[in-house]
Amino acid sequence: MRFKTYTLQLPPWVDDILSEQDQIYPTVEERMALAITLATNNIKNNGGPFGAAVFERESGRLVAPGINLVLQTNCSVVHAEIVAIMLTQQQLANFDLSAEGFPDYELVSTTEPCAMCLGAITWSGISSLVCGARDEDARSIGFDEGDKPENRFAKLKSRAISVTLDVLRDEAKAVLQQYIDEGGIIYNGRMKII
Amino acid sequence: MRFKTYTLQLPPWVDDILSEQDQIYPTVEERMALAITLATNNIKNNGGPFGAAVFERESGRLVAPGINLVLQTNCSVVHAEIVAIMLTQQQLANFDLSAEGFPDYELVSTTEPCAMCLGAITWSGISSLVCGARDEDARSIGFDEGDKPENRFAKLKSRAISVTLDVLRDEAKAVLQQYIDEGGIIYNGRMKII
Repeated sequence: MRFKTYTLQLPPWVDDILSEQDQIYPTVEERMALAITLATNNIKNNGGPFGAAVFERESGRLVAPGINLVLQTNCSVVHAEIVAIMLTQQQLANFDLSAEGFPDYELVSTTEPCAMCLGAITWSGISSLVCGARDEDARSIGFDEGDKPENRFAKLKSRAISVTLDVLRDEAKAVLQQYIDEGGIIYNGRMKII
Repeated sequence: MRFKTYTLQLPPWVDDILSEQDQIYPTVEERMALAITLATNNIKNNGGPFGAAVFERESGRLVAPGINLVLQTNCSVVHAEIVAIMLTQQQLANFDLSAEGFPDYELVSTTEPCAMCLGAITWSGISSLVCGARDEDARSIGFDEGDKPENRFAKLKSRAISVTLDVLRDEAKAVLQQYIDEGGIIYNGRMKII
């Protein structure tokens, strides 16, 4: 094969963190707290300030975590939400998390998903989206969130994806601010005009 | 590591096809013809009817091909455009294809990118998008293209990404129709109402 491959794999520190945690996260706040812990530790490990995780919505069982791996793996696609979705689908050996016989799955993300990730959620089969920091929180400190559709939350709902906003919003915003304060790179912030 | 990994790798038949082709594709029509060949062969190999490739825009050198690998690899994220972008970034060891010192890169896709892929293009550093079949061609035979932003082509242009539509559109539409005629699965077509 003359083309390189790409292996999506969580760094070992994610396992270390999770081994100290419960497997069950009953409330959305506990789920968000885990995603924030992942984001905070990703900054320490030279990654972007974003964390996510997929849970069984009813039981609260963690299925797969996600962290932003853009900087570490030279890949603009691997936002935290994409990582959590891809790893969940591998765990379950199915590209559709709404497939017959599955429980409902919930994606928890420290910041509202960007335009790409909103699209990815649509295809994933996720039934519920929970966000910490808002789109405007990310934009206000310089992150580009992409070009989103009008009435994006209503559009997700019309696809049977429920949306819960502002869960631990202040704590999630603080992670973004920490990244900026520590001199983190605002990658993909370029806006050349032709 | 308790979580499964995901390896993005093109199937061997892609190499077989490319070994019979030139490395340089001077015109957008030649570039699209390659993407269509990839899509057609993906159908034969139990994949979705979508192909893509990234080229150096000026020289026409192929950098990386892409095919839709959703069905074969249990992953809703790996549309043809995502695959081509991820593999190109691995080839160049950079998450930003607009990085200093790089030539302009062009993404050629047999069908206009879905909402997720439009977002991914924004982050990739691609300078030029070339499409075959239109959004409405895909929708008219049952594919869901997602919720796209208003004035999506103008928005790409404002980000210094040029857009060329309708390159070999009829041939690209024919691939979609072939897939339907052969009983291909319209995956992710579910629209549950809550």
